[in-house]
Amino acid sequence: MTMQTTIVYAHPYEGSLNHAILERLVATLEAKGHPVTVLDLYADQFNPVLSAADLAVYGEGKTTDSQVERYVQILDQTEQIIFIYPIWWYDMPAIMRGFLDKVLLPKSAFETENQRLLASRQVRKTYIFTTSAASTEDLEQVFGDPIRGTTMAGTFKDVGFLNPIWYNLGGIGHISQEEIDVYLATLSSRV
Amino acid sequence: MTMQTTIVYAHPYEGSLNHAILERLVATLEAKGHPVTVLDLYADQFNPVLSAADLAVYGEGKTTDSQVERYVQILDQTEQIIFIYPIWWYDMPAIMRGFLDKVLLPKSAFETENQRLLASRQVRKTYIFTTSAASTEDLEQVFGDPIRGTTMAGTFKDVGFLNPIWYNLGGIGHISQEEIDVYLATLSSRV
Repeated sequence: MTMQTTIVYAHPYEGSLNHAILERLVATLEAKGHPVTVLDLYADQFNPVLSAADLAVYGEGKTTDSQVERYVQILDQTEQIIFIYPIWWYDMPAIMRGFLDKVLLPKSAFETENQRLLASRQVRKTYIFTTSAASTEDLEQVFGDPIRGTTMAGTFKDVGFLNPIWYNLGGIGHISQEEIDVYLATLSSRV
Repeated sequence: MTMQTTIVYAHPYEGSLNHAILERLVATLEAKGHPVTVLDLYADQFNPVLSAADLAVYGEGKTTDSQVERYVQILDQTEQIIFIYPIWWYDMPAIMRGFLDKVLLPKSAFETENQRLLASRQVRKTYIFTTSAASTEDLEQVFGDPIRGTTMAGTFKDVGFLNPIWYNLGGIGHISQEEIDVYLATLSSRV
């Protein structure tokens, strides 16, 4: 079964390991027949700042940013979503954070009922691929496990990004090229 | 004992509760004789996106953003730091996230030793004031407690923002003006 797949990608450098992960995943997904759309936040020069004008229309589920409108329309068609980003200060970069702030709007992403959020969309499969200087164990045990605790159990649940799985490659400052190659080679079996 | 105090403030709307918190805290701190500098990220039109050019000089502790240079110099003189922001998707807005990404640079903020970060600065007192639609209990128990777990135990510890205390006003969508007034009135005893 093929699924309309959206990749939300955030890394400023084309020579990065994150970019290698992106390329490997796109090739794998296309080989499996999934139609893939990449939202490359840096290449799109996405502005992650939710402005006063955005805030004024937020409750109506609207935005002043045409890039956000485009992303919302793509999410409306998405059956499988994949996030790729580097972990900076134990969580996502600002440009990815702003994707949550601005693109996950009332009405299209969620409704509020009795002070609880109900997801408007049902995206069937969700993946997060990250790299970090810290070890994966430290992210989980020392630094609050924000990806599982906040992103996955909080935001993703609220907006219907279902069945999330997180794959992190930790300790990237001191692992060998061979370890990186092994990690990249495993990607085709992940999605 | 007066302390050189820096407030890092992020809210797009001047009529916001966050702005009322800012005004009350500034008045309190000045009355107590603390020299106060406000870094108003929205008013400064701070760009939270760490660019490829920034990344290329990151390891040297440098930046391509003159606003970041100014903020670094202010942090070098800071003895007490206060963060004020709304909680969006259970954590900080993108513009505040980018303050961490871009301003907490190697050398001026931390050194790396045996893959651990050692703080370069010692900021003696640290406060976080936030508002949230979710209840404080839900932030702590359902949504991963990212402010204590990741921001305070992770980033703030690594960069020497010492003795952090977090005050949240939760459930702001359904509390009364009287409850808000009580909260604002308590601020003068918090710092």
